[in-house]
Amino acid sequence: DEHWYDRIHMRGYTQIRTGSTVSGDNKEVVYWPDKSVGDNTNFLIRRARLIFYGDVTDNLYLYFQPDFASTPSGSTTGNFGQLRDAYADISFDDKKEFRVRLGQSKIPFSFENMQSSQNRLTLDRADGINTCCRDERDIGAFFYWAPAEIRERFRDLVANNLKGSGDYGVFAFGVYNGQGANRVELNNDMHMVARVTYPYQFSNGQIFEAGVEGLHGRFVTSNGPISIVTPNGPVNITPVMVAPAQGFVDERVAVHAVLYPQPFGLQAEWNWGRGPQLNAAQRLITDSSLNGGYVQATYKYDAGAWGIMFPFVKWQYYEGGQKFERNAPRNLVNDLEFGVEWQVTKAIELTAEYHMMNRTDVLNAPYNQFRADVVRVQVQWNY
Amino acid sequence: DEHWYDRIHMRGYTQIRTGSTVSGDNKEVVYWPDKSVGDNTNFLIRRARLIFYGDVTDNLYLYFQPDFASTPSGSTTGNFGQLRDAYADISFDDKKEFRVRLGQSKIPFSFENMQSSQNRLTLDRADGINTCCRDERDIGAFFYWAPAEIRERFRDLVANNLKGSGDYGVFAFGVYNGQGANRVELNNDMHMVARVTYPYQFSNGQIFEAGVEGLHGRFVTSNGPISIVTPNGPVNITPVMVAPAQGFVDERVAVHAVLYPQPFGLQAEWNWGRGPQLNAAQRLITDSSLNGGYVQATYKYDAGAWGIMFPFVKWQYYEGGQKFERNAPRNLVNDLEFGVEWQVTKAIELTAEYHMMNRTDVLNAPYNQFRADVVRVQVQWNY
Amino acid sequence: DEHWYDRIHMRGYTQIRTGSTVSGDNKEVVYWPDKSVGDNTNFLIRRARLIFYGDVTDNLYLYFQPDFASTPSGSTTGNFGQLRDAYADISFDDKKEFRVRLGQSKIPFSFENMQSSQNRLTLDRADGINTCCRDERDIGAFFYWAPAEIRERFRDLVANNLKGSGDYGVFAFGVYNGQGANRVELNNDMHMVARVTYPYQFSNGQIFEAGVEGLHGRFVTSNGPISIVTPNGPVNITPVMVAPAQGFVDERVAVHAVLYPQPFGLQAEWNWGRGPQLNAAQRLITDSSLNGGYVQATYKYDAGAWGIMFPFVKWQYYEGGQKFERNAPRNLVNDLEFGVEWQVTKAIELTAEYHMMNRTDVLNAPYNQFRADVVRVQVQWNY
Repeated sequence: DEHWYDRIHMRGYTQIRTGSTVSGDNKEVVYWPDKSVGDNTNFLIRRARLIFYGDVTDNLYLYFQPDFASTPSGSTTGNFGQLRDAYADISFDDKKEFRVRLGQSKIPFSFENMQSSQNRLTLDRADGINTCCRDERDIGAFFYWAPAEIRERFRDLVANNLKGSGDYGVFAFGVYNGQGANRVELNNDMHMVARVTYPYQFSNGQIFEAGVEGLHGRFVTSNGPISIVTPNGPVNITPVMVAPAQGFVDERVAVHAVLYPQPFGLQAEWNWGRGPQLNAAQRLITDSSLNGGYVQATYKYDAGAWGIMFPFVKWQYYEGGQKFERNAPRNLVNDLEFGVEWQVTKAIELTAEYHMMNRTDVLNAPYNQFRADVVRVQVQWNY
Repeated sequence: DEHWYDRIHMRGYTQIRTGSTVSGDNKEVVYWPDKSVGDNTNFLIRRARLIFYGDVTDNLYLYFQPDFASTPSGSTTGNFGQLRDAYADISFDDKKEFRVRLGQSKIPFSFENMQSSQNRLTLDRADGINTCCRDERDIGAFFYWAPAEIRERFRDLVANNLKGSGDYGVFAFGVYNGQGANRVELNNDMHMVARVTYPYQFSNGQIFEAGVEGLHGRFVTSNGPISIVTPNGPVNITPVMVAPAQGFVDERVAVHAVLYPQPFGLQAEWNWGRGPQLNAAQRLITDSSLNGGYVQATYKYDAGAWGIMFPFVKWQYYEGGQKFERNAPRNLVNDLEFGVEWQVTKAIELTAEYHMMNRTDVLNAPYNQFRADVVRVQVQWNY
Repeated sequence: DEHWYDRIHMRGYTQIRTGSTVSGDNKEVVYWPDKSVGDNTNFLIRRARLIFYGDVTDNLYLYFQPDFASTPSGSTTGNFGQLRDAYADISFDDKKEFRVRLGQSKIPFSFENMQSSQNRLTLDRADGINTCCRDERDIGAFFYWAPAEIRERFRDLVANNLKGSGDYGVFAFGVYNGQGANRVELNNDMHMVARVTYPYQFSNGQIFEAGVEGLHGRFVTSNGPISIVTPNGPVNITPVMVAPAQGFVDERVAVHAVLYPQPFGLQAEWNWGRGPQLNAAQRLITDSSLNGGYVQATYKYDAGAWGIMFPFVKWQYYEGGQKFERNAPRNLVNDLEFGVEWQVTKAIELTAEYHMMNRTDVLNAPYNQFRADVVRVQVQWNY
C-alpha cells in the first residue's frame, strides 16, 4: 500500500524584515509592498509559507500554499493563514508536456511575477510589472505547454541556483477572474492572458531566455472620499468613476529577457498598457495609459565555506494607475536598489539592500510623491 | 520508536466552480450556498481542505480539518484557513463500538449533512434539512455507538464508492452550543440531538439505510434594518424579535431513507419543526413552523477507462425561516436539479448540473423570490 | 536522498472548555483570558494547534505553530488559523549552546509564560505576569545560551512530565517590536528583554530553578469613548493619553522560583514595573506603577492504570494597567484556584478547577470589579 507522505510533501520558507530610512522624506515614506519600511516600524514577518505539494496520481500534481503572514481586510490583528496557491495540474500525456492548471495560481505574465519570492534577489517585485496582478495570482484555468527537455531546463534553472522562474510553459494561455488573488469577482467579464517564453541554451552552457506576454480584461476598481482643501476649508469628495458597467479596460503587453547568472546575470522587462487611473485633479477615475519595467544585473559569487553571494543592482520605473488600491491613484516610481543576497547555507539567506525611493504613497490621499533612501534587511529560512 | 507520520495522516480535496444563469430572473439570482452563482461571478474556490487525521493512540482518533476557502465576517478578502472539524474520538472498548466525540464536529442530524461534500452528487445540500445547522457543525460532545460489523459497513459504503455518509453511529446523542460552527455561543441553553440509523444489507448485497433524528434547543437570531417603502418615501425599520431571553425555540424531527447505488440509488429525507422566522409584513420575527426535504435518484455507471459516472436528479422543497441569516427571513424553495458527476480518475471529479431555481434571496431584504435556470460546473481534486 | 518527513515533524494539541458560575456576580463575569467563562457561554475551543518543527539542517531548527482557535479583530466568526510561533533557531556551535532565534516567538520573561499551555496546570496564566506580553510573544531577535547538560535538563523536565518550561536558555537577551504577537508595530522604539534562570539539581534528584528577568520599552496603547453618567445624562468621554510621542514607558522586573514536582512541587513569581493605566476618574491614561504574581503548589500522583493526577492550588494577585486593552484600564486581581489535572492517558488530559474570582472586567467600561466562583472544566487531546 502507498504512503500518504510519498504522495504529499511539505516544504516552505519564512521571511522577516526590517527597514530604516537613512535620508529623505522620513515621515512620508509609505511603501505599499512592505510594511517594515516607513515611520513607526521595526520587525515584520513578510511571508510565512507552508507548501503541500506532490504527484498525487500519474496525471494530477497538487500545489497548496497558505501564507501565514496575511491580514483580513479591516482586521487590526494579522498573521492569519490565507491561500496563495491552491491548484491542480492535470496532464494529458505521459511526459506532462500538456497541462491544464485549475484553481488559484500565478497569472502567466512577466518573468519576475513567475519567479518565487524565495528566489528573487530584490526584496520586492518592480511596480511596473507587478501592478498587473494583485498578489500575482487569480482563480482561473491555465493551459501550459513545454517540451520535456525544456521542462527539465526550467527545473534545473531553479535547482542549480540560477534564479529561475519555474516551469510556466513555453506557451501559456489562460482565463481568470481578474480582481486579484483571494478577491471576489465583480463583473461577468473574464481576463485572458497569453505568454511565450523560451530558455535558449548556448553550446558553452549559457542560457538566455526571452519572451512576450499580454493580458486583457475589465477591472472594477473602488473609490472613496479624498479630503480636498478649499477656500471654505477641507471637504471630502469621492472621485467619479468614468467606466462602462463591466469596469475599466485593463490590458498590457510585456517583453522580458534574462541572461542567467553563470556567473554574470542580466534581467530586464517592460510593459505598456491601459487601466484605471485617478486624474491629476483627483476628481475622476478614467481609462489611462501606463508603462514601466526594470533592468537588473547580478553576479553569482561562490565564496566556498562562506556560502554564495549575489550582489545585485536594479533600476525600476513605472507611470500608471495603481488599480487595486482605492481610487486607482497615479503611481510614479523611479527607484534604484543595490545590495547583496548572501546564501549562508542552503537554509539561511540574508539580503541587505540600499533602496533609493522616488515614488508615490498610493495608500493615502492626496497620494504624495516622496524621496527617501532606505536600508533594508531580510533574513529568510527555507525548510 | 514510532514515526509521527504513521500516527498523523494528511489528505484533502479542493473544489472550484462556475455558474451561468441561462434563463430567468438573471439579475435577481442570489444563491446563499454558492457565490459562483449569480450576476457578476465567475470562478470560485468553494472548498479547499486539508485534513489531518489518524489513530494517535489506541483510544484516541484525531480529525482536524481546516478549510482555506473561508472569509472572516466583514472582510473583503477571502480564502483564509478556518476550522471545519477539530475533534477527538475517545473510544471505551477495543472494537471502538462506543465513542465520545469532543470538539467541533458534525451534528448528527440527517443523512446528507453527514455525507462529505467530497462525495455528494449535487453541488450543495438541500435547504430543507441543511438550514438546521450552520455549516453542519457545532462545538459540543457527542456519543456514538455502532456494532463493529456496522462500523465496517459504514466504512465500506464510502470506500466502495457508494456515496456513504461515514460512521456517525447506529445510535447518536449529543449536546452542543447551537449557534453554528465557528460562532460564539449567545445563550446559556445547549442544543440536544439524537439519531438512529441502520444500514440493512440484503442477501443480494443491496444495502438500504433508514433512520430518524431530532434536535431541540434555543437559537438567538440577529436583526437589522429593512428598507420599507412608505407614502413618505423609504424608511428603515428593524424587525422586532418576539422571543424569550434565551432565544427562539429551535426544534426539528426528520426521517431519512437511502438505497445505495448498486447501481440504482434512491435517497430521500424530510423534516418538520419550528424556528425563528420573519413574518409576512417583515415587522416581526416570531416562532414559526417549517418543513422541507428532498428526493434524489442516481445510477452508478462504470465506463471502464472513461471512469465512473453518476447521473442524478434531485427535487427539493423548503418552507421556513433561514435562522442563521439576519432577520431570519422566510425561505421558500422549490428546486429541481439534474446532472452528472463524472469521476474521471480517483483524483479528478467533474460535476455538471442544470439547476432550476425557484427560491428566496435570503441575504438581501426585502427577500425577493426569484426563478432562474443555472448551469453549474465543478471540478474537484482529491489528494 | 533525505525524506521531507524526517526534517519536518508534526504534532499539536487541542483544548475545549466549559465554565459555570456557581455563585457571585453571575451576570458581571467577564474573564478576558477565556470566553467559556461568563453569562451566555457553553463550549469553547480554546486552542487548536498544529506544530511543524524539526532540525531542517545541522544549524537550523524550525518551529512553525498556527492556532486555529483565533478570531480576526472585528469578525463575528472565529476559529481561523493564526500564527503563534514562526521562528528559526540558528545555532553557532555543534552542541547548539549558542543560538539566535528569529521571527515570532515567546518573549523570555517569567517562567509561566515560557511553559506551554499544553503543560500548564491552571487553565490560564496569572494576570500579574502575563499582562507583560500579549499572547506571550512578539516579532524580534533573541539570543539564547545554555550549556549542553542544562539544555538536556530543560528537555528532561518536559519529557519526564515535570511541567518544565522548555529550553529558553540559562541566559537570554532579545529585542522585539513590543505591541504583542500578530500586532502591527506602532513606534520606532524596540523593546529589550533579558533573563537568567538556572535549574539546579540536588544529589537526591530534586531540581530547583530560580531566575530573574527584566524588560523595557515604549508601548502605544489605544483609547476610546467611555460612557460617563453626569447630571445631564450619560456622555461619552474619551480618556486623554498622557504619553510621549513614542508611547508609554513599559518596564518590568521579575523573579521566579520553581521546585519541580517530585512529587511535591512549588512555583512562585512576582514582578514590579510601570506601564500605561487609566486613572481613577477614568479621564486620563498615565504612566503608573504595577505589581503582581502568584504562588502555586502541586503534587504529582501516579495512579497506575488510572493515569497521573496533579492536584493544584494557586493564588494570584495583580494591581496595574491592562495595557493591551483599550484605555489600559486598571486591573485588580485577587484570585484563588484549586483543582486537578488528570492525565488519563498520554493523549487525553482532563482538568477541573474551582476558580474564586475577585477581579476587574477589563473589556467593558466602566471596568467594574466582580466576585464569582466558577467551576471550569477542560479536555485536552495531544497528538
